[in-house]
Amino acid sequence: MLADKEGLGPSLTDQVVASFAATPDERLRTVMQSLVRHLHAFVNEVELTEAEWMAAVRFLTATGKMCDDVVRQEFILLSDTLGVSMLVDAINHRYATGATDSTVFGPFYIDGMPEREFGETMALTPGTPALVHGRVLTTDGEPIAGAVLDVWQTAENGMYSGQDTAQQHGNLRGRYRTDASGCYAISTIVPVSYPIPTDGPVGKMLEATGRHPWRPAHMHFMIDAPGFRTLVTHLFDEGDPYLGSDAVFGVKPSLMVAYRERPASDALARQFSFDGAFREARYDFVLDRGLKE
Amino acid sequence: MLADKEGLGPSLTDQVVASFAATPDERLRTVMQSLVRHLHAFVNEVELTEAEWMAAVRFLTATGKMCDDVVRQEFILLSDTLGVSMLVDAINHRYATGATDSTVFGPFYIDGMPEREFGETMALTPGTPALVHGRVLTTDGEPIAGAVLDVWQTAENGMYSGQDTAQQHGNLRGRYRTDASGCYAISTIVPVSYPIPTDGPVGKMLEATGRHPWRPAHMHFMIDAPGFRTLVTHLFDEGDPYLGSDAVFGVKPSLMVAYRERPASDALARQFSFDGAFREARYDFVLDRGLKE
Repeated sequence: MLADKEGLGPSLTDQVVASFAATPDERLRTVMQSLVRHLHAFVNEVELTEAEWMAAVRFLTATGKMCDDVVRQEFILLSDTLGVSMLVDAINHRYATGATDSTVFGPFYIDGMPEREFGETMALTPGTPALVHGRVLTTDGEPIAGAVLDVWQTAENGMYSGQDTAQQHGNLRGRYRTDASGCYAISTIVPVSYPIPTDGPVGKMLEATGRHPWRPAHMHFMIDAPGFRTLVTHLFDEGDPYLGSDAVFGVKPSLMVAYRERPASDALARQFSFDGAFREARYDFVLDRGLKE
Repeated sequence: MLADKEGLGPSLTDQVVASFAATPDERLRTVMQSLVRHLHAFVNEVELTEAEWMAAVRFLTATGKMCDDVVRQEFILLSDTLGVSMLVDAINHRYATGATDSTVFGPFYIDGMPEREFGETMALTPGTPALVHGRVLTTDGEPIAGAVLDVWQTAENGMYSGQDTAQQHGNLRGRYRTDASGCYAISTIVPVSYPIPTDGPVGKMLEATGRHPWRPAHMHFMIDAPGFRTLVTHLFDEGDPYLGSDAVFGVKPSLMVAYRERPASDALARQFSFDGAFREARYDFVLDRGLKE
């Protein structure tokens, strides 16, 4: 019986691999042939049943149907929760250049958000007021003027604008620029830990496998400056209880910030128009010179 | 550089595998942990770029969106064209019992098609008239009375009803029963080779990889009888030019039939009301006793 299977399995796999032999693009041929070998190895290893195969077809179909054109990308969520996004990140950003570490892009980015002034608030919903500021630097420690920081985070209810129709357009999103000395400043609220959306197939997968859907509190950054590689990363709150079990495996020790309490009398309160106590987080980003991707 | 990658890759993979350790269902745990290891091995092997990862997300999303609730199942088509469906078939039907070989189910089955009389035609569209008949037997060669043969094939234009809105409901589909001596008889048209649908993501994949979309001419059967395993298979026309390069790898040498020319004067013409020359194909199916799946 097993001999029969071993006879059939590999020879079928070879036949499928061979069917891609005439792929004009060499890279595509390599990727497809590797995909077929690994996919078949998985199916062989677990001896996938027909019912499981049909369940997989239904799961993938439902995952596609869950995606919309605005903010819900269930396949990115699936990639994130299977650690594939972080693996792709690790493979493509493994050069020890001294630049800031990258992490997952996530499924909630929206292009074309409002351009904001130095220190302007992006919070249209309540929360603990916070100033997030610092510099954008080269690997040699030189300031980068005019770098654009595209920033996004959830509201206190754990939802991103776009996801939550009750939030105004652009809430907790915006594009900031560094000044002549490479400084950036963002007035916002302290981010909260939140569950990734659980009302779709990925949520069902997490529930069935006994995994929680929580992500530690973080702020997203995509930072771009002419002549430097685009940096996609987060800043995590170093006190968050989910740092050790991020549902999408995105945490890196180098990406922690503290949100320190500051009184209303602090000089920064006057500079950035806080009318009471607030929190302050400082972080300097370092960009890598190199080809744009 | 490479050491860095080798340091990151496996340790991330282990972390993701470990996140499934508390899965209550042991089988689900095994499947998910194996899936993660093989998926990560693929991504590592090809060093998937971020642009390729995004292309994969878009491809899978479009594949989900292409599926409808009627007859289009693009993920089954993807599974078929990557040889995964035939691999699952081989794994789950590898017992040498003497029963008829199975092959891919395909994405075009429709449940609840008309019950048809012995020898009734299921062709509402033109083609070369054909009689497909034979017996349904046990592995000991005993006839099985009352077996249900759920049959489907394309019209001459290469489309299945449901796929082609111009075709009447139930065209070239139907459920036949064996008589007391285990015989079945289907009046129909000779099937034609046809391309699988190329207007979706799977079609783009075939085009980009230089593969043709053709399937050799065949008739689909799902045969069911109390006390026997359901048989899902095809009968292929032994003269078809695509037998060696089926886009979904479904061909097996044991599933060939010849469509032999018969004159209007043939005794079968009178019995089955053919009013001119026709083709005759004979095939005996053998069912395996055993648990239903």
